[in-house]
Amino acid sequence: VTAIICDNLCIIGAGLIGGSIARSVQKRGLARHVTVYDASESVRERVRELGFADAVPDAIADAVKGADIVILCVPVGACGAVASQIGSHLKAGAIISDTGSVKGAVVKAVQSHLGADVHFIPAHPVAGTEYSGPDSGFDGLFDNRWCILTPFENTDATALKNLTTLWEKMGANVETMTAEHHDLVLAITSHVPHLIAYNIVGTAADLEQVTQSEVIKFSAGGFRDFTRIASSDPTMWRDIFLNNKAAVLEVLGRFTEDLIALQRAIRWDEDEKLFDLFTRTRTIRRSIIDVGQDAAEADFGRPHALKQDYEK
Amino acid sequence: VTAIICDNLCIIGAGLIGGSIARSVQKRGLARHVTVYDASESVRERVRELGFADAVPDAIADAVKGADIVILCVPVGACGAVASQIGSHLKAGAIISDTGSVKGAVVKAVQSHLGADVHFIPAHPVAGTEYSGPDSGFDGLFDNRWCILTPFENTDATALKNLTTLWEKMGANVETMTAEHHDLVLAITSHVPHLIAYNIVGTAADLEQVTQSEVIKFSAGGFRDFTRIASSDPTMWRDIFLNNKAAVLEVLGRFTEDLIALQRAIRWDEDEKLFDLFTRTRTIRRSIIDVGQDAAEADFGRPHALKQDYEK
Repeated sequence: VTAIICDNLCIIGAGLIGGSIARSVQKRGLARHVTVYDASESVRERVRELGFADAVPDAIADAVKGADIVILCVPVGACGAVASQIGSHLKAGAIISDTGSVKGAVVKAVQSHLGADVHFIPAHPVAGTEYSGPDSGFDGLFDNRWCILTPFENTDATALKNLTTLWEKMGANVETMTAEHHDLVLAITSHVPHLIAYNIVGTAADLEQVTQSEVIKFSAGGFRDFTRIASSDPTMWRDIFLNNKAAVLEVLGRFTEDLIALQRAIRWDEDEKLFDLFTRTRTIRRSIIDVGQDAAEADFGRPHALKQDYEK
Repeated sequence: VTAIICDNLCIIGAGLIGGSIARSVQKRGLARHVTVYDASESVRERVRELGFADAVPDAIADAVKGADIVILCVPVGACGAVASQIGSHLKAGAIISDTGSVKGAVVKAVQSHLGADVHFIPAHPVAGTEYSGPDSGFDGLFDNRWCILTPFENTDATALKNLTTLWEKMGANVETMTAEHHDLVLAITSHVPHLIAYNIVGTAADLEQVTQSEVIKFSAGGFRDFTRIASSDPTMWRDIFLNNKAAVLEVLGRFTEDLIALQRAIRWDEDEKLFDLFTRTRTIRRSIIDVGQDAAEADFGRPHALKQDYEK
């Protein structure tokens, strides 16, 4: 049984996601030949050093030429420009996909640049870390994570099956939904959480009565968790918010409404209201652990210097 | 050189914090005798099974009798009632301390129940996990974490020195400040972050257009981090918000103001404003890692099944 999904796989953008796909495909032998392109010359050079691609051409047209599957792994706001550069160089029958955290805007930006003879299937692997760049990726990033595909009504069934198999072989679980629904789901599970994390870190930095040094020293009380998320790639996240504006603003409106109600409960000593919410939220955590989307170990399993010591 | 700080240490409340102090003191031999009391009979029974105390009496008066240091490790809202129960049973010259995340309200609730012949020194170790109960504690919880003491102007210098040494020997760094300043610092580094984590998890659960199962499946996009914090002990956190109302409402007002500005920046495509904030927040993360308050490893070092595999 061969693991090969295609002869030539091309990845545009060698950051955390692109680099992880390349490493994963290379390790599992899912393509005979992996080509990686990045707009930055220094990144291309680094990819050659790291060795997770069979070829790293200097021209994007050369990169996509002859590719069976092309995956755009660039910030959401750059997808349209990349599509316009590669549109006329694609092989007939090729699958074009992406990995953006927003789907509606990407479809709008990309589709018009592609010919009718290629299969465009938007995708979004829901996985990542707070790091970025060619060194940050690793095989296993997609293991037991979900990859959402948002095919069109007339998407070719064989192309869809091939792309699904590629993601599954990289360890992911695949689900399909409409681009519109994807953008709403991700607004609540990813985009708004990132926004409020960025926001609380900004608020803390700006408080005149508390020094930066105090914020940092006493961050173990909860704040430090937010700083991890708030250290994610600025370009990527700026693009996400601007390109999923409608859903983000809608969910944000709900969040703020709920927060105001919670604020009022504190002001008026509504102890039961607080206790009930805090009890309800515990069950959601439990479910996330039960389905393997997070570790059960205390504090994410972060090292506590003497813990192991004591347990001996 | 002996490590002993006192003959008899008494801990009231055998949850995460009380259990961690007892284990830490026992392991390092910081007291000749550790007594633990908990209001719950089943918890007392469990402490006897776990064996992290030399004595677990059934009456709180017996527990504090003869103790040199008594540390209240109960929810902030219970400190006053506990103080009223133990006030007349304390040894002259004893140090009474606590571990509450709020200091002003605890001082108000506790002080009137204590005689002039004991030393009351409020304390707050800024450390914890999302778990609670007698099984959740561990030696090492306080290692390289900060413990804030909020002594009064007339606090006895020797008593303060003894309590400081106890925390330092448990691995903590000690800092002193006023109760009022403590409550403001913790509002931003801990209380408001917890509140918005509870809130976003509640908002997600209530969104009609997104199923609970979708929220759970796609939580790796960022949401799951918030659920850890939102699974912390409901009683403890209800008490914190109600007892640090002024500072929490003040910081929450700043947070909301900043969030509305961010929302407006998204609506009006103010890309530079977003990019600047997202860049600024990265440096705070860097500082927290640099001073050892969090791990530098991606994703808090959470397990990615195949990561180790690839790196081999």
